[in-house]
Amino acid sequence: MIIRKLDDVAAAPVAMDGVEGAMRQLVLGAADGVPNFSLRVFTLEPGGHTPCHSHASEHLNYVISGQGTLMDADGKANPLAAGEFAFVQPDETHQFRNVGNAPFVFICAVPKEYE
Amino acid sequence: MIIRKLDDVAAAPVAMDGVEGAMRQLVLGAADGVPNFSLRVFTLEPGGHTPCHSHASEHLNYVISGQGTLMDADGKANPLAAGEFAFVQPDETHQFRNVGNAPFVFICAVPKEYE
Repeated sequence: MIIRKLDDVAAAPVAMDGVEGAMRQLVLGAADGVPNFSLRVFTLEPGGHTPCHSHASEHLNYVISGQGTLMDADGKANPLAAGEFAFVQPDETHQFRNVGNAPFVFICAVPKEYE
Repeated sequence: MIIRKLDDVAAAPVAMDGVEGAMRQLVLGAADGVPNFSLRVFTLEPGGHTPCHSHASEHLNYVISGQGTLMDADGKANPLAAGEFAFVQPDETHQFRNVGNAPFVFICAVPKEYE
């Protein structure tokens, strides 16, 4: 078994088109021997966001802190706050945005092939 | 996409041999159409614990609140506190225990077949 503190996981800026002010930490993944899925943590600065995109891998999310929105394919901003969960289906257009004044920090679980 | 608050998810006592003071909430799972893995949340009362067991499905965990230990096959008590992550490998003997005075609440992600 592995127990891991978030502060002990390296953080790297997310370098993708359409990203603003986003850091990624791969907390548990293929390098740890996970058989099926991985846990990443994203931290969005105030005003930061992930790309508005879609892909074959689903997301299962838990918000550790902050206030964000989860944008859908119709451009609707669905509030997503600390303590709440989200499920983005395969091939569903989505974007996470920080709409608060503090970091928006969330777990994003994905199949390990997408980690 | 689905956004879900923990308070909106039904909680049921865990009825397994070796369990004490444990509630389970299936936050996102097969009924929601997850393709690969599910998110459950367990709440252990002070003194509560899950079974000391092993199974073919891995666990990926995040502790929402409280202070627990993750017991391993050698009976070692590994501290596991709010904000920390854990990975229990397939077929690895493990037990979660609440060793604090408040509820010990943690996410347990598993392949959907084990939800």
